[in-house]
Amino acid sequence: MINERNYTLMCDFYELTMANGYFLAGKADQICYFDVFYRTTPDNGGYAIACGLEEIVKYIKNLHFDEEDIEFLRKKGIFDEGFLESLKDFHFTGDLYSVKEGTPIFPKEPVMIIKSRAIEAQFLETFVLSEFNHQTLIATKSNRIVRAADGRAVSEFGARRAHGAEAATIGARAAYIAGCASTSNTLTDQYYGVPSGGTMAHSWVQMFSSEYEAFKAYCESYPNNVILLIDTYHVLTDGVPNAIKAFDEVLKPMGKRPVGVRIDSGDIAYLSKKVRKMLDNAGYNDCKIFVSNSLDEYIIRDLLLQGAKIDCFGVGERLITSKSDPVFDGVYKLCAVENDGKIIPKIKISENTGKITTPHFKKLYRLFDKENNKAIADLIAIHDEAIDFSKPIELFDPEAIWKRKVVEEYYAEELLVKVFENGKLIYDLPSTKQIRDYCLAQVDNLWDEVKRFENPHNYYVDLTQKLYDLKKDMLK
Amino acid sequence: MINERNYTLMCDFYELTMANGYFLAGKADQICYFDVFYRTTPDNGGYAIACGLEEIVKYIKNLHFDEEDIEFLRKKGIFDEGFLESLKDFHFTGDLYSVKEGTPIFPKEPVMIIKSRAIEAQFLETFVLSEFNHQTLIATKSNRIVRAADGRAVSEFGARRAHGAEAATIGARAAYIAGCASTSNTLTDQYYGVPSGGTMAHSWVQMFSSEYEAFKAYCESYPNNVILLIDTYHVLTDGVPNAIKAFDEVLKPMGKRPVGVRIDSGDIAYLSKKVRKMLDNAGYNDCKIFVSNSLDEYIIRDLLLQGAKIDCFGVGERLITSKSDPVFDGVYKLCAVENDGKIIPKIKISENTGKITTPHFKKLYRLFDKENNKAIADLIAIHDEAIDFSKPIELFDPEAIWKRKVVEEYYAEELLVKVFENGKLIYDLPSTKQIRDYCLAQVDNLWDEVKRFENPHNYYVDLTQKLYDLKKDMLK
Repeated sequence: MINERNYTLMCDFYELTMANGYFLAGKADQICYFDVFYRTTPDNGGYAIACGLEEIVKYIKNLHFDEEDIEFLRKKGIFDEGFLESLKDFHFTGDLYSVKEGTPIFPKEPVMIIKSRAIEAQFLETFVLSEFNHQTLIATKSNRIVRAADGRAVSEFGARRAHGAEAATIGARAAYIAGCASTSNTLTDQYYGVPSGGTMAHSWVQMFSSEYEAFKAYCESYPNNVILLIDTYHVLTDGVPNAIKAFDEVLKPMGKRPVGVRIDSGDIAYLSKKVRKMLDNAGYNDCKIFVSNSLDEYIIRDLLLQGAKIDCFGVGERLITSKSDPVFDGVYKLCAVENDGKIIPKIKISENTGKITTPHFKKLYRLFDKENNKAIADLIAIHDEAIDFSKPIELFDPEAIWKRKVVEEYYAEELLVKVFENGKLIYDLPSTKQIRDYCLAQVDNLWDEVKRFENPHNYYVDLTQKLYDLKKDMLK
Repeated sequence: MINERNYTLMCDFYELTMANGYFLAGKADQICYFDVFYRTTPDNGGYAIACGLEEIVKYIKNLHFDEEDIEFLRKKGIFDEGFLESLKDFHFTGDLYSVKEGTPIFPKEPVMIIKSRAIEAQFLETFVLSEFNHQTLIATKSNRIVRAADGRAVSEFGARRAHGAEAATIGARAAYIAGCASTSNTLTDQYYGVPSGGTMAHSWVQMFSSEYEAFKAYCESYPNNVILLIDTYHVLTDGVPNAIKAFDEVLKPMGKRPVGVRIDSGDIAYLSKKVRKMLDNAGYNDCKIFVSNSLDEYIIRDLLLQGAKIDCFGVGERLITSKSDPVFDGVYKLCAVENDGKIIPKIKISENTGKITTPHFKKLYRLFDKENNKAIADLIAIHDEAIDFSKPIELFDPEAIWKRKVVEEYYAEELLVKVFENGKLIYDLPSTKQIRDYCLAQVDNLWDEVKRFENPHNYYVDLTQKLYDLKKDMLK
């Protein structure tokens, strides 16, 4: 069942009125630089996981206006005919820099930079933000949940509670990138190669004359992949005994072992311990216990602290909507324009100091400890600053400049890679699995102090002295 | 820019393992009845607004398996070849009943019923729920926000913070149905005819040498639709004076009046009152004040209580994600099967009494007061019960059966309409505008007590005596 959606006009209407306005004001070709950055990490976390680049690349690569799109705009009666004509040849001709998908990112640092004609750069804003914000949100939440599970597998189960079929599908990809082992969503497997899995719902059990008959039929159909849902009636008096009976009577004669049982309701800490004992006593020490039911990182941590016997977590609505904090606040802000080839930095002032932007076309570096590869700090520099990273470097907190420290045994990596150059895609998109491996390795490079759920260490995102001075001067 | 997405496999993997299992157990053609209902209203509200039917209809109408879909499943190595072959001819052959989009709905009543072969009915679950849950969530939240605005226009502004481009687009449709006047999302206008609008971002102002130059250029480009964003620098000392100057110097000579000014930051209650006075003093009493900035129903109510001078609200992230409660908990539960043409009711027991389902193939009625058309109660009946609605009717609370009342001057309406019959679409989908009109009229028929934000009146959703007795007997 194909859903065709022409996303060209998935933009705030003001992107179009501004584009037409730039056209009329002779500013359509003015080269602009926009930064994408975010301000606060959801759930008061220590970092976010950047995600969404792949969909953004597909969008930019194919962006154009069909005759119907232009006709739709013409009927609004407010757009200049010359502007409408120019849309026939509209495509992205600029540069896009981005951190790689899966990179841990921090507030107020540029994680994408768009350099292009005003009319194009402005136009990308809505789509870029809606994809970046959504996928980064879900990846960030998923990484918290995976950390709470402390090495146990987490499976994404949230499709039915996601914000529609598309958010479910792309959200499951983000969850996998950030460390989930698998998803229940078959489409995310088909499109992105994320392992999908799942066995039965309560309705399966209800369709048979008894729970045992339902288990028996399942074991006969899938002898190699038996995970039985044991809470349709009563877990301890019905579910487990019926499951053991089906294992004994159907699987054993075939020489097969069950994979597991699943509990989806009740007091999971208590039930899992009882179920573990019953399975062990029946000779099924290798039968895993899967649990689900409105889990998140806090509940998972509590369950494990209480000694629950759980091998795998299925996490649904609280992951796929990031329920406790469902908005990622990425923004798209003008930071420079070009006049006669010269870059003129721009700043957005605000009475709320947290909303003041950092001007100019910039570079972003991450400094790592040479000894243990832990990330020490991020450093934002003006694009053409010469920095000698072979020498010790002095860092300072831009909001408390007397806090300074000299870093010696480090190495620096540039985080923004060039994805489009003069409108041409020059970046090879990695596979979903490669992005996941990269993400987990990068998270490994963060100090545990940054990964805490409560009051994580405030990771340093510093400006070079030159950039700091520029910003200070512009604020005056 | 076309995004093609084949949604056939947008299903939890277990829908497929169960379907294959039904096939192997000889149950593929077993006729099943599934109810869609929800359990708790988000934000402790008094009702929800049903939404999502249109996308579900499109999905069901076109549902089929391509050769690639089947090949993808074949490679999993767990599906029966006969089952895979049968998927070539798979399409929906059953009946779908649904409340109309825009209908106010209440917990635990069936709002959709799917009657079909086991293998089809089970398969629809994930897509149906993800679309119904998302769109109902956004419609429900939007209706709260619109109520708080108390007659003032609310515009949906959330695209960039939605859960992706698709959630933004379809969410804006739901917001409009539930009472928003317009959206910032151009695509929702193009696809669904929802009025789109918007004027400028802060970047527009930054692109010019001064705020005044930016305002002047805008007035020259759009003399008939001037809404100036006045908070890029300082609202009272820069924004308003510059706006008035542009109105005076550009619009007045053309004989045009401005539409409005917009404030997107700062203390909106205070600023709006000051701005109102400054505009009035300059002779612009007709210039409207638009505000935005992380609004929701509570902030809007507070602003109005404080006498803020606001004509239109732009509401973004807190609407398009339903931030305060971003999950709608609609479920899909087996309520009956057919054996030899006879309907056998099914019930799902749970230790949590709130999770016990209501068995059987059912009908849903809404009773209205003859005098004022207010909704009195909903009544769930067995599908073939003869009820004489011309006579007084005794209602009772199914959770406290001693609470009874006799209703006399009423009329009844059946809420579930037949949308598909034997796989054929027999329902004319109304336009988005028609759905909106219907929704607002239906909300008008609810008592104010049901619409309160805090502790709303618990609207009665009752069972007929016959259905109640059946449920009680099955629980024994």
